[in-house]
Amino acid sequence: MGTLETPIALTNTLNVGLVHDALVTVMAERCAADHVAMHSINPVVGECNDSQLNAIVDRPIHEAHVREAIAGACRDFDEGDVGAGAGTVCHGLKGGIGSASRQIEIAGKTYTLGVLVQSNHGCLEELTVCNRRLGEEIIAKRNARPAPEPNDRGSIMMVTATDLPVSDRQLRRIIKRCSVGLARCGSYFGHGSGDVMIGFTTANRMPAGGMHRVIPQQVLTEHTLELAFRAIAEATQEAVLNSLCCADAVTAEDGRVFESISKYL
Amino acid sequence: MGTLETPIALTNTLNVGLVHDALVTVMAERCAADHVAMHSINPVVGECNDSQLNAIVDRPIHEAHVREAIAGACRDFDEGDVGAGAGTVCHGLKGGIGSASRQIEIAGKTYTLGVLVQSNHGCLEELTVCNRRLGEEIIAKRNARPAPEPNDRGSIMMVTATDLPVSDRQLRRIIKRCSVGLARCGSYFGHGSGDVMIGFTTANRMPAGGMHRVIPQQVLTEHTLELAFRAIAEATQEAVLNSLCCADAVTAEDGRVFESISKYL
Amino acid sequence: MGTLETPIALTNTLNVGLVHDALVTVMAERCAADHVAMHSINPVVGECNDSQLNAIVDRPIHEAHVREAIAGACRDFDEGDVGAGAGTVCHGLKGGIGSASRQIEIAGKTYTLGVLVQSNHGCLEELTVCNRRLGEEIIAKRNARPAPEPNDRGSIMMVTATDLPVSDRQLRRIIKRCSVGLARCGSYFGHGSGDVMIGFTTANRMPAGGMHRVIPQQVLTEHTLELAFRAIAEATQEAVLNSLCCADAVTAEDGRVFESISKYL
Amino acid sequence: MGTLETPIALTNTLNVGLVHDALVTVMAERCAADHVAMHSINPVVGECNDSQLNAIVDRPIHEAHVREAIAGACRDFDEGDVGAGAGTVCHGLKGGIGSASRQIEIAGKTYTLGVLVQSNHGCLEELTVCNRRLGEEIIAKRNARPAPEPNDRGSIMMVTATDLPVSDRQLRRIIKRCSVGLARCGSYFGHGSGDVMIGFTTANRMPAGGMHRVIPQQVLTEHTLELAFRAIAEATQEAVLNSLCCADAVTAEDGRVFESISKYL
Repeated sequence: MGTLETPIALTNTLNVGLVHDALVTVMAERCAADHVAMHSINPVVGECNDSQLNAIVDRPIHEAHVREAIAGACRDFDEGDVGAGAGTVCHGLKGGIGSASRQIEIAGKTYTLGVLVQSNHGCLEELTVCNRRLGEEIIAKRNARPAPEPNDRGSIMMVTATDLPVSDRQLRRIIKRCSVGLARCGSYFGHGSGDVMIGFTTANRMPAGGMHRVIPQQVLTEHTLELAFRAIAEATQEAVLNSLCCADAVTAEDGRVFESISKYL
Repeated sequence: MGTLETPIALTNTLNVGLVHDALVTVMAERCAADHVAMHSINPVVGECNDSQLNAIVDRPIHEAHVREAIAGACRDFDEGDVGAGAGTVCHGLKGGIGSASRQIEIAGKTYTLGVLVQSNHGCLEELTVCNRRLGEEIIAKRNARPAPEPNDRGSIMMVTATDLPVSDRQLRRIIKRCSVGLARCGSYFGHGSGDVMIGFTTANRMPAGGMHRVIPQQVLTEHTLELAFRAIAEATQEAVLNSLCCADAVTAEDGRVFESISKYL
Repeated sequence: MGTLETPIALTNTLNVGLVHDALVTVMAERCAADHVAMHSINPVVGECNDSQLNAIVDRPIHEAHVREAIAGACRDFDEGDVGAGAGTVCHGLKGGIGSASRQIEIAGKTYTLGVLVQSNHGCLEELTVCNRRLGEEIIAKRNARPAPEPNDRGSIMMVTATDLPVSDRQLRRIIKRCSVGLARCGSYFGHGSGDVMIGFTTANRMPAGGMHRVIPQQVLTEHTLELAFRAIAEATQEAVLNSLCCADAVTAEDGRVFESISKYL
Repeated sequence: MGTLETPIALTNTLNVGLVHDALVTVMAERCAADHVAMHSINPVVGECNDSQLNAIVDRPIHEAHVREAIAGACRDFDEGDVGAGAGTVCHGLKGGIGSASRQIEIAGKTYTLGVLVQSNHGCLEELTVCNRRLGEEIIAKRNARPAPEPNDRGSIMMVTATDLPVSDRQLRRIIKRCSVGLARCGSYFGHGSGDVMIGFTTANRMPAGGMHRVIPQQVLTEHTLELAFRAIAEATQEAVLNSLCCADAVTAEDGRVFESISKYL
């Protein structure tokens, strides 16, 4: 429908239903409190499969955690191995939640493009940090041999938020460029559950229902998108690196250690 | 991923999360019973918004109902105002679950295309039954005036199952033609939550994981799709009509009656 | 790019290149006359395969015909077996160029949606005129048997023009509903070169190049699209019927006669 | 239609029609020579806009050049500033035609993935050669300031050829990963005429027409695509670099020099 009706939630693959259900419950309560009749709601829930680290079938997430997450939403939030990033693995190291943003000036006004990622993708061998082939260095330091076949089978959720006045077509073109930031970190978009980009702008709000009418919107001239393309590529690259840098090492139940990138920087 | 991992479930908009979660639970139990480690599962859940008839925020569906539905799956099932069709409205009359199928012979072998719909779309004025403008007749009989603006804002789930040996591209081309059957009944694909086609074939099963290898598949020569296109258009038209014909009249809490089409045939 | 830079031209499959080239030539001349440096141009050329009636490899169309067509563009134009419709066959009868339009009032202002088709699709057996199964009647009158397999392998170009203030996403949703009008005439979107919808709005013009900036646009509230959906379905249905009604019978070189629908109405 | 019917031709934006027309002519002659009736043909023509270097409106390409190109097609071909690459500019340097390939072993058999590019994209500032920020080095050496706004507005044609037994869906997933190679060279997929990937496999040939029937195909198990994803990313990166390394410096009519990357390596 093109309109966000709930907070965007991130979780793991097996919790999508539960989180979706909890979002409906919370929104129903809010509507009841506001004396608004709720006839429909379409939650947005993203997921990565964190079964490398997490005993995923145990599903310890419950409605209370969703409520807690919504209540705790704030401007300054933790990154790394927190929330839906607690169990994710990125380029063979501990991944997680990361974010970054860029500001663009257009005709004297400043706009912001922010990206938040849940990083769970990539193989160690290809990890590249600002053009440094760090993954190969780590393999050398570990005295390990590169895997006979690199495993880039995970996925990453990339959520873009902006106040740029863009049409949905322009927004789609922008968020597709998240893939550039990903590739710069060494991803080749491996087979697996997918590299998912979603995004929204707070500009151009659409009224629901009401009389049939024509409403004004604001969009960028097409070539101005160039500025946004560059910004989103940079922000996504930085968000992925932040998700790595903010994450501490975690030991899986089977003893495998997923180290922090900070050990090697 | 292209591979069905659970039964396909249909429900209403606000139950999608709950049904998704229940499907994960059921599949996790089955895997445990089979001593198979479950690392991921991607349920398929379809929905229509049945809030015209149903007090949708009450959400009376629980995990037990999902288990019941899975246990009760069988070849000969009820159509009309049952299951996820209990609360749906189609072309201003009582809609619901409907199904139909066609058989195609190719090179001496018989294949089947079946369609199941959850009908919740269309406006009365445009209802057309086998080229008879029944909607206009009903409006005349009721001595009602046509609505100043017909309301085709609902949606319909159309699930196609076949044993035709087709590629995913061929399957996509086939299920798109469900829209032809819909249009023949008088739909113009109104704005709203959407007319959703999903489909699967039982041919060409893909092995999961294992060694890298090349596997054989079977597909139709391209022009043979013509037979399937015609079949799916007919089957969808019949499935929509079945969903109407098998449904009894239902009175909403606010007193509005959604009649059965059978009263007018 | 989303911006029309030339007239939209319709021709047959083998002339696409020639017509494209002629449009570039004409636009280059115009730019030269206007002392505008032309660095790029992206012509829009549609096509149907008219080889049932036309000795298509002879390719008698030349640049002069394209110039003539551009010079002759006007408000009141011929329909039926003219121009790119001279050789097309529709539902087994003589097809061609047809057009129709609808007007919509939104917030006190009147907008127009017009559709022009080049009809070259459909099988006789399924031809339906305002819910009358005319194709079956014609087969009966001819004392012919229905073809063992109906042949809906052709294609149709549908060009929508409007002054509705819509976003490109809204426009795409509108032109997709051309398919409803097509289905109402008996098409099931057969395999073949395709049923192609293109469209443009004269509202919301985008400036090319210049400073980076934000520009105003106007769009419809989403549910207002409903009016446009209904209008485009009706207009396309009428345009297809016009393409049939305005066409005279034509005899192919091999003696086969493609009759005019007017003989049977 | 999914089936290649002509050689794939690359040219500049204003020659697309002419080259399309010439391909039709050549194929019509071949069909006539083979006594095959030609009813349709759908040429594939790609293009970049080379107006930075080329006086594009002069259009010096004629049918004879297309014939020459077809006649001259061979295994060992020139790269760099040749053919459709004569006028292209890549990352601010002289671009052109480049190609590279990778071989993959699957179940004991060797398959090849080849990529040919017509490079006309990217800005100097972002040029990256094997993780070396060469663009920034060149700007420093030239004592130039980086452009206030990098100009990544061009486009690139990427043509993938393979003998991998893949479905069209698998092929689409593979060629999308060409973008990874592009990003590794410093592209962020700027606004402009676009980064176009096309591809074909010589496996799984589809018969045209004939009886309705089921035919065998071969596909890869899904996770085997991983090998192809990695290969296409590498091959595209190398093809872009080859297009640069094989190109000599060219001076535009207005005196601007587009240097060869070889000067800086």
